Amino acid sequence: MSILVVGSVAFDSIETPAGRAERCLGGAATHFSLAASYFTDVRIIAVVGEDFTEENEAVLKRRGIDTRGIEHAPGKSFFWSGAYGSNLNEAQTRATELNVFESFSPKIPAPYQDSEFLFLANIDPVLQADVRGKMPNVRMVCGDTMNYWINGHADNLAKVLPGLDALLINDTEAKMLGKDTNLVRAARNVLEMGPRTLIVKHGEYGASAFFSEKSFSSQENHVAIPFRAPAMPLAEVVDPTGAGDSFAGGFFGYIASQPDLTPAVFKKALFYGGVMGSFAVERFGTERLAQLDPKEIEERFETLRQLSHLD
Amino acid sequence: MSILVVGSVAFDSIETPAGRAERCLGGAATHFSLAASYFTDVRIIAVVGEDFTEENEAVLKRRGIDTRGIEHAPGKSFFWSGAYGSNLNEAQTRATELNVFESFSPKIPAPYQDSEFLFLANIDPVLQADVRGKMPNVRMVCGDTMNYWINGHADNLAKVLPGLDALLINDTEAKMLGKDTNLVRAARNVLEMGPRTLIVKHGEYGASAFFSEKSFSSQENHVAIPFRAPAMPLAEVVDPTGAGDSFAGGFFGYIASQPDLTPAVFKKALFYGGVMGSFAVERFGTERLAQLDPKEIEERFETLRQLSHLD
Repeated sequence: MSILVVGSVAFDSIETPAGRAERCLGGAATHFSLAASYFTDVRIIAVVGEDFTEENEAVLKRRGIDTRGIEHAPGKSFFWSGAYGSNLNEAQTRATELNVFESFSPKIPAPYQDSEFLFLANIDPVLQADVRGKMPNVRMVCGDTMNYWINGHADNLAKVLPGLDALLINDTEAKMLGKDTNLVRAARNVLEMGPRTLIVKHGEYGASAFFSEKSFSSQENHVAIPFRAPAMPLAEVVDPTGAGDSFAGGFFGYIASQPDLTPAVFKKALFYGGVMGSFAVERFGTERLAQLDPKEIEERFETLRQLSHLD
Repeated sequence: MSILVVGSVAFDSIETPAGRAERCLGGAATHFSLAASYFTDVRIIAVVGEDFTEENEAVLKRRGIDTRGIEHAPGKSFFWSGAYGSNLNEAQTRATELNVFESFSPKIPAPYQDSEFLFLANIDPVLQADVRGKMPNVRMVCGDTMNYWINGHADNLAKVLPGLDALLINDTEAKMLGKDTNLVRAARNVLEMGPRTLIVKHGEYGASAFFSEKSFSSQENHVAIPFRAPAMPLAEVVDPTGAGDSFAGGFFGYIASQPDLTPAVFKKALFYGGVMGSFAVERFGTERLAQLDPKEIEERFETLRQLSHLD
């Protein structure tokens, strides 16, 4: 099965209590692709500038990621610079230079047309809706968004939500979008806006899935209560950048590797999300995600399973 | 099995987004006792003033709680008044009147001497150490504390910690006590201060237990990774006051009801803690905890188990 991901490929300069790194390969589509690549085939659509080197692209290619959808444009790649203090959940942005990303207009290469899964990373909802419309026959669509679009582009976002099988956002975004400070009520409100399932990422506390009657195609699969997967307690978080996208990659990659989307598959997928998010933050940029041993993934999955498992 | 609890019995005036309640029966020992009473016998040591009525005491007695250790002193009972905004994790204290609690000097009634379990609720560590010293033969001791004692009475607290089988505190307190912003490292530091196990309460995200080699009496029971129990996602939290003490009551009450403290019992106990905490917050004061049906407890336990359970 193939996942098509549309989003940013960028360079990040990051400072955290563990150190600093200049111009690491980053961007939502990058983290997502690398994480998902351990489970299924991945195809990427993004735009980069002249500063994006063959070696940068090789990081993706070595993981078998199809990069034919990466458009090379004149100018510089999207660049972000930020710093984290002791609260690793919140970055202080120092610089955001959209560069070639400012006029990003996703084009779907012909060989990508048969992709069965679609991930709309955090980009302008107008572009998300455009890509979604061009891929009407995918089996499942997941999407991300952020406070900027929720607050300032609500009408455009509202057009994207009904087309999503799962929306993946964090606690703050869910409460903002659902207009309620209580997460459960906010989740209900978000589900009424159209996504079949809402996944709320809690950072170091894991993630919850809130299901609706439309979450699974079969009514007998209806799940009445939410599901919550824990996150790995880590003694060192080097760089939290991209953790949420890596979570999404593990989650969606695992689903794409399975024959059917059952509640059991969905729940395991949340654990694989936690696994990939936990690897991502152990090094700066893509360093850890780019070279994992599949055995490490299975071992950590088992650890995460045991973390909350009652016999 | 009997649990002896030493702590506050108080009156609370509380305002939350759900409404307000004047002079509800409250206090750590009250919430703890009620929650634990569904699992085991409970004996309470506290001090109250002349405003503490027979009807107040009857709330405890109806749950079979032994109140002979409640000392009646001239003056008024401990009174706390506070308000919660939309962030229900943080109370704004409006008034704290220690009253008779200021000169609390716990006395252990003769019939309490054979208690097998001891819970030291959040009181001055000097008093905690005193009571601990007078109960040398208990099978298990759990204790709570707070930022006030961690910051200002560290030396006294340090004398209590080695006598605890489990210390139950929240994230902020654990990081403060362990002097590290990373929870896993902070937990390691706290365990080096003496408690055999550290339980960190994450509020709406559940609770984690960090084990040491001394957590269980048998070495073959050693648990190398932490354990995390989720909390119930609730659509309405009426009053979060006492949630942590109710968690402790469910946790310790369940342990006291079991023949042995195995890792399996310990893990289930964390789930029962979550169950009792979730009931506590559904009404103001002790209203919900005082009149639960044991069947409700088992049903919610099963829901909480399923919430994170992979088949």
